[in-house]
Amino acid sequence: MNQFIEKTMKRLQIAVIGYNQDKSNETTNKIAYEVGTEIAKANAVLLSGGLGGVMENACKGAKDQGGLTVGIIPQEEAQFANKFCDVVIATGIGYARDFMVASSADGIIAVGGGVGTLIELCVGYMLKKILVTIPSSGGTAENYGGRYLDDRKRVFIRTSDNARSAVKDILDYFESNQQS
Amino acid sequence: MNQFIEKTMKRLQIAVIGYNQDKSNETTNKIAYEVGTEIAKANAVLLSGGLGGVMENACKGAKDQGGLTVGIIPQEEAQFANKFCDVVIATGIGYARDFMVASSADGIIAVGGGVGTLIELCVGYMLKKILVTIPSSGGTAENYGGRYLDDRKRVFIRTSDNARSAVKDILDYFESNQQS
Amino acid sequence: MNQFIEKTMKRLQIAVIGYNQDKSNETTNKIAYEVGTEIAKANAVLLSGGLGGVMENACKGAKDQGGLTVGIIPQEEAQFANKFCDVVIATGIGYARDFMVASSADGIIAVGGGVGTLIELCVGYMLKKILVTIPSSGGTAENYGGRYLDDRKRVFIRTSDNARSAVKDILDYFESNQQS
Amino acid sequence: MNQFIEKTMKRLQIAVIGYNQDKSNETTNKIAYEVGTEIAKANAVLLSGGLGGVMENACKGAKDQGGLTVGIIPQEEAQFANKFCDVVIATGIGYARDFMVASSADGIIAVGGGVGTLIELCVGYMLKKILVTIPSSGGTAENYGGRYLDDRKRVFIRTSDNARSAVKDILDYFESNQQS
Repeated sequence: MNQFIEKTMKRLQIAVIGYNQDKSNETTNKIAYEVGTEIAKANAVLLSGGLGGVMENACKGAKDQGGLTVGIIPQEEAQFANKFCDVVIATGIGYARDFMVASSADGIIAVGGGVGTLIELCVGYMLKKILVTIPSSGGTAENYGGRYLDDRKRVFIRTSDNARSAVKDILDYFESNQQS
Repeated sequence: MNQFIEKTMKRLQIAVIGYNQDKSNETTNKIAYEVGTEIAKANAVLLSGGLGGVMENACKGAKDQGGLTVGIIPQEEAQFANKFCDVVIATGIGYARDFMVASSADGIIAVGGGVGTLIELCVGYMLKKILVTIPSSGGTAENYGGRYLDDRKRVFIRTSDNARSAVKDILDYFESNQQS
Repeated sequence: MNQFIEKTMKRLQIAVIGYNQDKSNETTNKIAYEVGTEIAKANAVLLSGGLGGVMENACKGAKDQGGLTVGIIPQEEAQFANKFCDVVIATGIGYARDFMVASSADGIIAVGGGVGTLIELCVGYMLKKILVTIPSSGGTAENYGGRYLDDRKRVFIRTSDNARSAVKDILDYFESNQQS
Repeated sequence: MNQFIEKTMKRLQIAVIGYNQDKSNETTNKIAYEVGTEIAKANAVLLSGGLGGVMENACKGAKDQGGLTVGIIPQEEAQFANKFCDVVIATGIGYARDFMVASSADGIIAVGGGVGTLIELCVGYMLKKILVTIPSSGGTAENYGGRYLDDRKRVFIRTSDNARSAVKDILDYFESNQQS
């Protein structure tokens, strides 16, 4: 995996998933913002579903650190994306875009979240991505972190105390795989 | 909802989801077959992901009762469907087809299943479909039946002891809505 | 191809594509209706995009002959389909559903049509489906019938004078392939 | 449109479409490379289908000028992208990804191309994007440039003599709309 990353110009892509504008609160917005800054500091690309709440705050955090943000939105018009997306993928395929947020990510971090976040975790789990949730953010991150999603135990959903360690977990994973 | 069904020619559509050919066993194949026969007896259309295991056995059960079966497959060529599908929707969009199995269904019945089945349950939950699992079939049906998938509690995932009551649960729901 | 059809329960699937409710007129509605009746008489399944205009009239024609109709709609709710669809695939993926109308069809018949119809012809062409247009219906059927869509000349777009011969063209193709 | 672009961080996104690795030749590779360099010089983001031929050469041109490249690929694994993509959207939805290459673009430039390129032009036409082809590159760019795709005449497909003027056409369009 990392050999591939070294050979190409593709940068590490980390998706931030979680509560949208309806359910995100001050706490989850703050955590999302910090996740965004950490991703930018790591020089990774921040992927998200490109809308409000956790998605928007993560993008804002990344932009405040000069990072690169990509929003993969359900609509077919870019104007629905939050204003902190450098690049907007206007999929036009509705919530089936959850699939490609997860399939496009090298690692995924969940902050809060409802069933849409669970769908993204499921797809990431199916494709054996590195999955990390921050349980203190509640919701799907709390309910589904620290376990497997089915009996096949494809990949364990890790948990982290905070934004910094969540991003570090993903970076460490790719660094250790690089050295081997 | 039912008023709509009465006005159009559209028949009630029930999706059967669960273990694929890799994980389905004699027990789950038998339950799936029975679910298929009950759906056909109710004159409903059986939707499925169109491949093996629970999907194939449900289709076989429906066909043995003269029912109508529709397989919505990931591939873009119909030949990948199981041979008990009257109609094959060759989506070509890979596992994102899970979305449309759920969005096309009026009700959904889960028999066993792994994370793919969980994705279909999640989409059905998001769209507030009638969801029924048969916990004795194990897997996702056992692990996620009898609960909600997120804190919003959009729709309770019902459980049934057997194929007949699972289908009856869905039929009763639409009948009672019709009378009101 | 035909060997496959013989071995499975899958019926021949013919897609009817063309003008939607905004552009279809008395002439194209009538042709579409006749195409629908011919498909039903041939005991094939009528696929369409499930909305108005040519799609709806073709479905109506098929239903008046006791045929089976499947509407593959852009929306994620079945209620947007025309009322002559027995089965509704509520894709939820917007106009990208054009892809699966074409990929799910064994043969495709175009009646009038604009750029959406051209997209469906393009996908059918890419996948080497049997393509027939009725040029007297105007639009895409007139402008793109009787030619190839690119320099690779994958499959010639046939033309027919009327509904009956358009359907016959497709049936003959599968019958002759069956005998060889 | 441009007001929107000013208010958000989203950069202008120009898609380059055309022959893939099977059909692209020295001439079209060179033109694609030049289109890529011009897009990068304009500080726009280069979108493409992320695979070989015109897509790869356009990405290479953009990277040689320090530009930003996004590949939207059919596969669900990033490793299938060409190595000059900074960001890879691994859609997993097969050739239906053509839809989102076009819907995500503010403007589209075609270099050569077959029916896949025509599909992308069609979607861009349906959504009224600025479409420019370079007819000297042959294929779809030659066959469909300088005309409308259907009778509704939604948007005229412009033609350009070379890479520089093709990109300039798109930039001028957005600049003039900005001033009004």
